[in-house]
Amino acid sequence: MALQIFGVPGLPEIVPGSDLATMILDAAHTAGTPLADGDVVVVTSKIVSKAEGRLVELADVEPSPFAREWSSRWDKDPAVTELVLRESKRVVRQLGPVMITETHHGFVCANSGIDQSSSGAHGRVVLLPVDPDASARTIRAGLVAAGVDAAVIVSDTFGRAWREGQTDIAIGVAGITPILSYIGQVDPHGHEFKVQAICTADELAGAAELVKGNVSRVPVAVIRGFVYQTDDDATIAPVLRDQSRDLFR
Amino acid sequence: MALQIFGVPGLPEIVPGSDLATMILDAAHTAGTPLADGDVVVVTSKIVSKAEGRLVELADVEPSPFAREWSSRWDKDPAVTELVLRESKRVVRQLGPVMITETHHGFVCANSGIDQSSSGAHGRVVLLPVDPDASARTIRAGLVAAGVDAAVIVSDTFGRAWREGQTDIAIGVAGITPILSYIGQVDPHGHEFKVQAICTADELAGAAELVKGNVSRVPVAVIRGFVYQTDDDATIAPVLRDQSRDLFR
Repeated sequence: MALQIFGVPGLPEIVPGSDLATMILDAAHTAGTPLADGDVVVVTSKIVSKAEGRLVELADVEPSPFAREWSSRWDKDPAVTELVLRESKRVVRQLGPVMITETHHGFVCANSGIDQSSSGAHGRVVLLPVDPDASARTIRAGLVAAGVDAAVIVSDTFGRAWREGQTDIAIGVAGITPILSYIGQVDPHGHEFKVQAICTADELAGAAELVKGNVSRVPVAVIRGFVYQTDDDATIAPVLRDQSRDLFR
Repeated sequence: MALQIFGVPGLPEIVPGSDLATMILDAAHTAGTPLADGDVVVVTSKIVSKAEGRLVELADVEPSPFAREWSSRWDKDPAVTELVLRESKRVVRQLGPVMITETHHGFVCANSGIDQSSSGAHGRVVLLPVDPDASARTIRAGLVAAGVDAAVIVSDTFGRAWREGQTDIAIGVAGITPILSYIGQVDPHGHEFKVQAICTADELAGAAELVKGNVSRVPVAVIRGFVYQTDDDATIAPVLRDQSRDLFR
C-alpha cells in the first residue's frame, strides 16, 4: 500500500481573487496527474494569502513607538515589526533579534508567520490567511464542485522548539481529521499504546514539502493513497494545545 | 517527479543481536519491493533498541528516593521514573504527571523516550538506542555491503511544544544530510529566502510514519525518489539546537 506524493507544477501567478481550486485542478490535469477522490491536496499558505489579498505595503504601515524602538536596536524594519505585533495576540519570547509570537489563530511561530521573502515585490509582505480552515474549505468546495472529493491542507513552514531546521506543518484543514487517535487501542501484546495520537496533518504537510521544495517554487503537492478519516467539519483547532496544557508558553 | 513511500512488512521478531540490515533487505525482497540505490530507509527506533538489547526488566531497577516520592504522588511506576531520570541529563519541565527531559543524546522529549507500551512483555521497557547515528550507520553499512547504497534514518515518535498530537522525527541518520540549507539562495524575485533551512530528515521520518502507522506494526518504511544530499559523515547533531540558541529550555 504505497503512498505517492507529487507536486503540481505550472500554476499561473496568483493574484487577489484567484480561484485556487480551479487553477490547481487545471494545472494537475495539464501535468498529466489529474486529481482524484481521496487525494490530500497540500497548498502552501503563501498562495492562499495572495489569492485572499493578504498583502501589505510596508510604506502604508505606521509603526508604534515600541515597534520602532525594538527594530532600531536589532536592525529590523519597523513596519514589519509593527505587523508582527498586530498579527499576534501575545509575544511568547522576545530575545535579541528573535520574536516568537502567538498569532490570533493560536499558532506559536516566529514573526507571526509573516513572509518577507517572496511576496512578488520588495516593500511588501504576505500575512497568514485570516482563517486557514476557511481557506481550506473554500478550496475543497471548489474541488468537490468539480467532482473531486479530496481533502485539503493549508501548510506553512514553521520552526520548532529544541530542533534546528524548519518543517512544513498544517495551519488549516478541510475534509480530513488532523489527528489520528489511538486512545484505548491495544498493541499485539495487550498493552495500551504509549503513543495516543499522531498529528497526521503535520506529517502530510511535511511530506508534501519534500516534493514542493522552496526554491523550485511548486506551491501545491498531492498525496495519494493515504487512508484518512474524512470529516466535513474538521478544523485545525484540535492541534492547537490549550495554554493550560502547555509547558512552553 | 513523484515520491513513493511504502512499508516493509513481514519482518521477523527482533531480538538482541538481530541483523536488521539483512532482515530489512530480505523482507523488502519477499514483499516484492526490493531496496534500491537512493532509497531512504526509515527504521523505527524500537526495533533498533531491541536488536541492540536496550531492554530493561523493571524488577531489576532500584528507584531513588526522589523517583519513589514523585511516582507515588502521580501514580507512576517508580522503576520507570528511575530509568527516565537515568536516561536524562536534565529535567526540562516537571509539572503534574508530566516529565520532559533532555536525554544524554540531547533530545528533548517526554520520559526520555522510554517506551513502556510494546516491549514484547509486561514489566519490561525499551530505552532509546545509545547512539542512534551509530545504529543508522551500522544498518546502512549492511545495506551497502549487500550492494544497496541507501540512506538510513532511525525515527521515534515525539511530542512537540504548542501542538497536540505526536509526529515521527529523526533521532539518527546515516548517509544523508539531515538539514537542507537555502542560506544565501535567492527566490525568483531576487529576495533572499526567509526559510533558510529545512529539516528534511524530520519530514522524511514523519512521511514514513504515514505508511508505518502504529497499530499495523510495520516498523520500517522506504521513501523512493527523494533526491538528498549524501554525506557519509552525517549525524543528527546539526538538528539539536544549542542551548544558547534555544528560548524554550
